[in-house]
Amino acid sequence: MKDNARIAIIGGDAAGMSAASKIRREKPDAQVIVFEKGEHTSYSACGMPYYVSGVIETSRELIARSPDEFREKHGIDVRIRQEVTAIDPENRTLSVRRPGPDTDAVYQESYEKLLIATGASPVRPPVDGIDAPGIMGLSSLQSGIDMRAAVERVQPKRAVVVGGGYIGLEMVESLLELGCDVTLVDQAPQVMATLDKDMASIISDYLSSIGVHVLLNEPLRAFGRQSDGHVDAVLTENHTLPADLVILGLGVRPNSALAGSAGLSLGARDAIRVNRRMETSVPGIWSAGDCAESFHRVLEMPVHIALGTVANKHGMVAGTNMSGGDLEFPGVLGTAIMKVGDLEVARTGVSEREATEAGLRCRTTRIKSRTRAGYYPGSERIHVKLVVSEQEGTILGGQIVGGHGAGKRIDTVAASITGNLSARDLVNMDLSYAPPFSPVWDPVQTAARTLV
Amino acid sequence: MKDNARIAIIGGDAAGMSAASKIRREKPDAQVIVFEKGEHTSYSACGMPYYVSGVIETSRELIARSPDEFREKHGIDVRIRQEVTAIDPENRTLSVRRPGPDTDAVYQESYEKLLIATGASPVRPPVDGIDAPGIMGLSSLQSGIDMRAAVERVQPKRAVVVGGGYIGLEMVESLLELGCDVTLVDQAPQVMATLDKDMASIISDYLSSIGVHVLLNEPLRAFGRQSDGHVDAVLTENHTLPADLVILGLGVRPNSALAGSAGLSLGARDAIRVNRRMETSVPGIWSAGDCAESFHRVLEMPVHIALGTVANKHGMVAGTNMSGGDLEFPGVLGTAIMKVGDLEVARTGVSEREATEAGLRCRTTRIKSRTRAGYYPGSERIHVKLVVSEQEGTILGGQIVGGHGAGKRIDTVAASITGNLSARDLVNMDLSYAPPFSPVWDPVQTAARTLV
Repeated sequence: MKDNARIAIIGGDAAGMSAASKIRREKPDAQVIVFEKGEHTSYSACGMPYYVSGVIETSRELIARSPDEFREKHGIDVRIRQEVTAIDPENRTLSVRRPGPDTDAVYQESYEKLLIATGASPVRPPVDGIDAPGIMGLSSLQSGIDMRAAVERVQPKRAVVVGGGYIGLEMVESLLELGCDVTLVDQAPQVMATLDKDMASIISDYLSSIGVHVLLNEPLRAFGRQSDGHVDAVLTENHTLPADLVILGLGVRPNSALAGSAGLSLGARDAIRVNRRMETSVPGIWSAGDCAESFHRVLEMPVHIALGTVANKHGMVAGTNMSGGDLEFPGVLGTAIMKVGDLEVARTGVSEREATEAGLRCRTTRIKSRTRAGYYPGSERIHVKLVVSEQEGTILGGQIVGGHGAGKRIDTVAASITGNLSARDLVNMDLSYAPPFSPVWDPVQTAARTLV
Repeated sequence: MKDNARIAIIGGDAAGMSAASKIRREKPDAQVIVFEKGEHTSYSACGMPYYVSGVIETSRELIARSPDEFREKHGIDVRIRQEVTAIDPENRTLSVRRPGPDTDAVYQESYEKLLIATGASPVRPPVDGIDAPGIMGLSSLQSGIDMRAAVERVQPKRAVVVGGGYIGLEMVESLLELGCDVTLVDQAPQVMATLDKDMASIISDYLSSIGVHVLLNEPLRAFGRQSDGHVDAVLTENHTLPADLVILGLGVRPNSALAGSAGLSLGARDAIRVNRRMETSVPGIWSAGDCAESFHRVLEMPVHIALGTVANKHGMVAGTNMSGGDLEFPGVLGTAIMKVGDLEVARTGVSEREATEAGLRCRTTRIKSRTRAGYYPGSERIHVKLVVSEQEGTILGGQIVGGHGAGKRIDTVAASITGNLSARDLVNMDLSYAPPFSPVWDPVQTAARTLV
């Protein structure tokens, strides 16, 4: 590529700005233009539940680097409040809407290489009342700012969270912090669909024990509104749940319509199809982050997983290749971690259900152990589930639910899967031990020992 | 082997009792005799510093299973206060000293298979005054009980710890807990010889910052005594350090004299030579735990590493093979973790110095990061050093020093070494992230990123 090539990036969050920064380092003379339809760049979406609760005081703290910093320190032409409305791959041009003093103007911008990093949007189910004020989801930093403003305005006493995934559970914690009476509703028979039911039930039992009303198998039907239009109830199959504030935690969908309209192939869950170099089906166009597919290392198929860790890796790989490098992204394990109250929850690889659905013959185990030596203060309960291949005992997945210090152990399992290790290898592994940190057999090893 | 074979085990702590339990499970009819010269079985030596400080209230809590429990619940013939004084491999007999009402009696006991799990003893340097009351080391549970009794009797105001390894630093913490003015003396130019000096200096700086007097490059010369014989000073090359209590943390030596006298080959640091099945050089005799060698997976040579984790694995492997099974112990990485005050310290694989001494061509990196997202409460500083092979970037070792939550990340590095992974593999690895747990790139990945 020419050293002064013009590279366009649509989307200024983790994936887009990781790529932009990488390109800037590799090709100091390249012209790098980032179109961001919002106001902010490189913010931590994952931090927003803690901003809403006030654990983090200002939204400023969630911003790693501002548009001005990118422009001034890194020479990246970040254009905020500018939305790309169309891509013309043949002529390598973009249509960009720029806000004007009276009406918006649309201008054309050419590119030699393009990265689509348009992210994902929270699912909003098409039920009656869904647009009522007081029904909120988390997506952009602005959505977090709006949610905190709503909390301060409404001073909610009763809150309902719809959907028991990561964001839903993190918002349960935030709402408890705010002193709300919290109800969690999920249409599935369990919370945390990425865990198996036996592990998820530990989470819902815990939630009940700290006073959260957990309603499972409860499809959402509609929202009730008070006379001024503000939401005042969540209507499910069997209940009418009064609510001053409703949080949607129903997952996200990739923002792939723009790419689809331009003729790019879409794949898993309509995410933009990419190969391991993050190239789309159209020459000259890459994609990265929550809008793009990933390859699942255990399932050996494309999946859509919208997480900041993945977005950053996508951006790094796309940026390297767009700079003329040659890097492949070997894929994801679906590793994730969260906490709700005093409970830590983590998972990696495939669950037993996922393995079964994918036709992987497996064995599983589930054990209870402690986060520290049993006699050491602060030792807490930890549950570990492992999924291994039936024949070789190769580790395919792990799930952890437990007290403080439990969750990050999932990384040992993730590394073991990456290294293609077996339960026996994990038993033999020289893991760290001292009473303030672990029992002499780390809990993941205690699980593995039941499988050899 | 015969189902009712007579199996003798010398030593009733981690390695010995792990093996005994394994044999009992595999061969319910075997006669399993354990000779333990002390009073206790299966206690947590690693917990003793916390018992001395009172963080753990009773020594009972450190005992996983008592001799009575082994006898009654598991049918293992545990003989406490009985010391094996000689092994006759040719006739497969042991000489055992049993305390009598007046004098000790010695009797002979035959065996078909023998496990030597005699542990290790703290190094006591042969300097003037070494035997003075008030100079103490940690080895058996009894030594911990004695140390706590001494603390309660002496009510030490000024304590000196000689040797800045794991036990030394853990005892620094314990003595600070007890309100002592603490001096740490080491003849080496750094604390924690298993870390590189650049990482160790972070530890000594921290110790100084919390009021510990750290004296490096200070060889021990002698101990001063008060008129009643009790220690009252530590004399080093350059200082006379007043002391009401002295803790020795100079490492341990394998208790291999008994085995050596019986003609067994000794190896690294005079530990009992074993193969990967934990067989010694003499047929019918196995060895396990702190008295035995281990194979180092990175250095690819026998080493002596006295740690509870290793002892348990040794015991498991020896017990399996002594029961007619066939298991190999693939070896150790020298993984270890400890805390001193609010600082966590961990290491695995080879240090830069060890790699260089072994002729391994390597590259290294050292980075600073945070234990949690920078904006999340409780985020603390973490330093990570990685050592990788020069050509392939294969991970050879890691060192971590940092605040709460830092240390256990060493397991990710240990698993990566076990899986023969490279820095690039670690960068690509799908590790867990959420603001309360990690930055979006885990610190071990931040380190790896500087190496690709």
